[in-house]
Amino acid sequence: MVFIINAFQPTRESIPPPNVSYQQKQTSGLPTHLHPLNPFPFILRAATVYPDKLALAHPDVEYPTFFTYRIWAQRIQNLAYALIEAGIQPGDRVAVLAPNSPMIADAHYGILAARAIITPINTRLTPPEVAYILEHSGSKLLLIDRGLMQLVQGLKIPFIVNNDTGRIGDPYEDFLSAGRRFSAEKGWAGLDVELDEGAGAVLCYTSGTTGRPKGVLTTLRGSYLAAIANVVEGQISKDSTYLWWASSLAYPHPLSEGNVLLNNRILPMFHAAGWTFPWANVFAFATQITMRTVDYSQIWKHFLNSGVTHYCGAPTVQIGIVNNPAARPLPRSISAIIAGAAPTAHLIGELEKKGIQPVHVYGLTYTYGPFTRCYDQPSWALLSLEERAKLMARQGQSFATAQEVRVVYPPKSEDDQEVVDVPKDGKTVGEVATRGNIVMKEYFRDPEATRKAFRGGYFHSGDLAVMHPDGVIAIMDRSKDIIISGGENASSLAIEQELASHPHVLEVSVVARSHVKWGERPMAFVTLRQEHVSAWKGKHNVFGDELKRYARTRLPGFACPEWVEVVEELPKTSTGKILKTNLRTIAAKL
Amino acid sequence: MVFIINAFQPTRESIPPPNVSYQQKQTSGLPTHLHPLNPFPFILRAATVYPDKLALAHPDVEYPTFFTYRIWAQRIQNLAYALIEAGIQPGDRVAVLAPNSPMIADAHYGILAARAIITPINTRLTPPEVAYILEHSGSKLLLIDRGLMQLVQGLKIPFIVNNDTGRIGDPYEDFLSAGRRFSAEKGWAGLDVELDEGAGAVLCYTSGTTGRPKGVLTTLRGSYLAAIANVVEGQISKDSTYLWWASSLAYPHPLSEGNVLLNNRILPMFHAAGWTFPWANVFAFATQITMRTVDYSQIWKHFLNSGVTHYCGAPTVQIGIVNNPAARPLPRSISAIIAGAAPTAHLIGELEKKGIQPVHVYGLTYTYGPFTRCYDQPSWALLSLEERAKLMARQGQSFATAQEVRVVYPPKSEDDQEVVDVPKDGKTVGEVATRGNIVMKEYFRDPEATRKAFRGGYFHSGDLAVMHPDGVIAIMDRSKDIIISGGENASSLAIEQELASHPHVLEVSVVARSHVKWGERPMAFVTLRQEHVSAWKGKHNVFGDELKRYARTRLPGFACPEWVEVVEELPKTSTGKILKTNLRTIAAKL
Repeated sequence: MVFIINAFQPTRESIPPPNVSYQQKQTSGLPTHLHPLNPFPFILRAATVYPDKLALAHPDVEYPTFFTYRIWAQRIQNLAYALIEAGIQPGDRVAVLAPNSPMIADAHYGILAARAIITPINTRLTPPEVAYILEHSGSKLLLIDRGLMQLVQGLKIPFIVNNDTGRIGDPYEDFLSAGRRFSAEKGWAGLDVELDEGAGAVLCYTSGTTGRPKGVLTTLRGSYLAAIANVVEGQISKDSTYLWWASSLAYPHPLSEGNVLLNNRILPMFHAAGWTFPWANVFAFATQITMRTVDYSQIWKHFLNSGVTHYCGAPTVQIGIVNNPAARPLPRSISAIIAGAAPTAHLIGELEKKGIQPVHVYGLTYTYGPFTRCYDQPSWALLSLEERAKLMARQGQSFATAQEVRVVYPPKSEDDQEVVDVPKDGKTVGEVATRGNIVMKEYFRDPEATRKAFRGGYFHSGDLAVMHPDGVIAIMDRSKDIIISGGENASSLAIEQELASHPHVLEVSVVARSHVKWGERPMAFVTLRQEHVSAWKGKHNVFGDELKRYARTRLPGFACPEWVEVVEELPKTSTGKILKTNLRTIAAKL
Repeated sequence: MVFIINAFQPTRESIPPPNVSYQQKQTSGLPTHLHPLNPFPFILRAATVYPDKLALAHPDVEYPTFFTYRIWAQRIQNLAYALIEAGIQPGDRVAVLAPNSPMIADAHYGILAARAIITPINTRLTPPEVAYILEHSGSKLLLIDRGLMQLVQGLKIPFIVNNDTGRIGDPYEDFLSAGRRFSAEKGWAGLDVELDEGAGAVLCYTSGTTGRPKGVLTTLRGSYLAAIANVVEGQISKDSTYLWWASSLAYPHPLSEGNVLLNNRILPMFHAAGWTFPWANVFAFATQITMRTVDYSQIWKHFLNSGVTHYCGAPTVQIGIVNNPAARPLPRSISAIIAGAAPTAHLIGELEKKGIQPVHVYGLTYTYGPFTRCYDQPSWALLSLEERAKLMARQGQSFATAQEVRVVYPPKSEDDQEVVDVPKDGKTVGEVATRGNIVMKEYFRDPEATRKAFRGGYFHSGDLAVMHPDGVIAIMDRSKDIIISGGENASSLAIEQELASHPHVLEVSVVARSHVKWGERPMAFVTLRQEHVSAWKGKHNVFGDELKRYARTRLPGFACPEWVEVVEELPKTSTGKILKTNLRTIAAKL
């Protein structure tokens, strides 16, 4: 680690008393052999075992901050008491609107320590969406980054601004310091332990492509078990360093066009509670580096100099990483946890050349992030990169603490509660379903939506997939992304995977476009690799024909794209997913 | 892995049907977001993800057996149905009396799959002790290794004998084959899921040095969480191979003298359910090798040729390992999980020279095995081996899924329910106490003993320790091992640690012996290192004086041994713990 952390002095109130005890209040109501699962106490154990280890580094800002586990734990205690003093009661929602920063990391612990529920809000949303979430969640308080104030103009919710300085005079620091007054008196043993492990932990709102955002409520038990699964699956340890990044750019931003965001994004802490990684890393005693912005050169600096071992991101972000001029073979291997879409053979090859080991996982906000993983098999070592990539592109099998993943037939009627598996033939398309500890508790204040999603005691994901004979699922599409071409179901994902194998294609997205004869036909939007952009300049039609010919050698007729549009960039959500709705709108207008 | 596993053909009934489904029965009674924690389904996930990976190797016997996850899972299913067909009901106890072997590994899954409780019995016990355990546990059936029949002569319990051949004609194999008839019809979905994660998992009997053995009942939830903790702490993964060994020698044996066993032992599967490692290894998709016997040369063969990465054992066993003529630096590092006593500087140095990384943990049958670990600190790299060993000898801080460990004052009266910590001064001796998910549920059929052990909502271990300022506990002694010398409390453990640093001492044990003037005084029993045995032959008294002089330079007067006895070997329990009761008897007679 190259950080010169001595240059930063945490506030006096961030320093724990000399005889600090990390013992929680005694839980006299519980049997001796039980304690409720809860990820918040991970910080107490880390502060006990590795008090002076760097826990949280926030280096790439005007006022860099560095917190050891001992200091960070004290700040979390201060936050918990400050929240309680501000009137936060058990079960209350506390909203957080912030890019990756120590404050949102604190919030994942301090809010739970106060027995409240953290409501992280996507920084990419519009003011009316933010207002709706604050209203629907009934949040009593908002912790907000100074750069995002324009999202809450005119709203009445009480808030604490974080200037992200870690210095005295920063309103967030003053809030923490105020909390310290009570924490000094009472310490950890003064905080009531949440006895119900089924109590709410996180309330996330899904940024649905249509309709109002829905609140996804998760539990303490689920958060604990999902975090541990991420530690085991990622083999995170005390020698690990996890890199967080995301864009700090918020609405309205010059690079955004209405709702369409042109930058590539990666898993930020505000998205599905960062897939429980804010807890997983602490459980493993790892170090976390938070970057407010996405800056590939800076990312490579951290890869090369800061001991980074783990990060998460969608393939689009991984493409940005391998294509950066600073990219080079790494002195030590890094685990890249890939989700959101399947990595292509080309991407896998490029990552591996740099010493980055891709781990392909699949998950949703409803499942605390990843709940399946494509487990690599020893036999794959004998395969070509392309063959291996085809197997790796599948979404895999259930995660360490997840219950089984199934692919099931759609309901026969509104009231159909039977959950029946499709055959394990790699062909029959069904819906991905699962149940168990790492499934959300409910849609917040929406029993009707919960009932529908939990048909037959299983959570139904809305993702369409096949089940292969080896028990591995492969996502075909979201229900609405299937293209019904001449009566056949064409998977836009399968088409994209074939088109992506063309050597000149950087990224591709396929949507349905209506067709007089066939009902629907696939339309492909593609971006070209940097080195081929100029060659095809002014000849996009010619490339389109070339790609259509290429497709016909690899896909059945009904799945071949009828139209190909070469674009400079694809529209994406804040988490790097391609916004197919926007592409559909464009396709409809053509 | 050098095993030639093709030489072995599992029985026809061990081979799953071609379209096997690993899906359990649907649990319609539970909320969608809950599934009860239970370690048994680990095998279903392993068989799904790595069906053809070697799960269980049993190579060092007349009829070697090798089971992949797919085959092993089928055998477990057969066992579950065979048990149910034999009349085993949910909550019933099924006893197992066996050395490390596939049968006892099966039992850790098959018995739980039948919703029954596994009762592993120490193979070192006498027939009356075994009879008592079978009677007290109310076991309905016994799975017994052919080599241990003399332990149950004349008892009426129904039993299945395992000849440990894995071949047709072996009564245990016939039992499994019978189970297959039902499993073929019903599969995994035919087995009821245990909905209560607080249900019993294992009933172990502690082989107390005095009095009747006590039954320690653990839960499914605790077993699940303790197993995962062992995976995380041990960093076990699909690339790991765990080596089990133990002596198959049973009572009466030519090497035993009454109750005193002269061989060194290590953690066998029957001891505290092998500290949950039978489940931990499967959760991590690791390979397990089972050795019926302890044979250091054979162990080194496995170290060098079988890809071993993990094993557990007391320091006495580790001494046997490093002193074996086959010992040499290993091509890849092995984790040695050490418990039962603190490793000495000499032992740590010898292990590290071979590429064996010692991990010092502390635990009890009541805590599913380890619940604290001595976490190594980065700053230790700068210390001398001796200084580092002193720090590593401490028992550490709480384990991944354990709740906090405390050192507390003894109760002031019979009814004292207050649990008060001793100061963190590294001096004040108190009792080790803990609570939470990895504490036993109860003493089986002994509410009075449970009530006493759970005073004030904490489990009281009976081990005496100090709490260091850094939050690390260091065991001083079992309550009864404290020597009250001239009114001072002398820790026999602390004395042993100092005496063990003498370069000629191999092992040492210190007990109290009554003394006219001082009440009690320490007496040391020592064995000499191989290379010094002949030099001191016939001059044991001279060496005793030399060791007493050595002690006076390192210990306070009241803690110096008044007597030193050089012996050839120290008496030990089946798990390698030195039998101080025997030494006390000898000391009393002198």
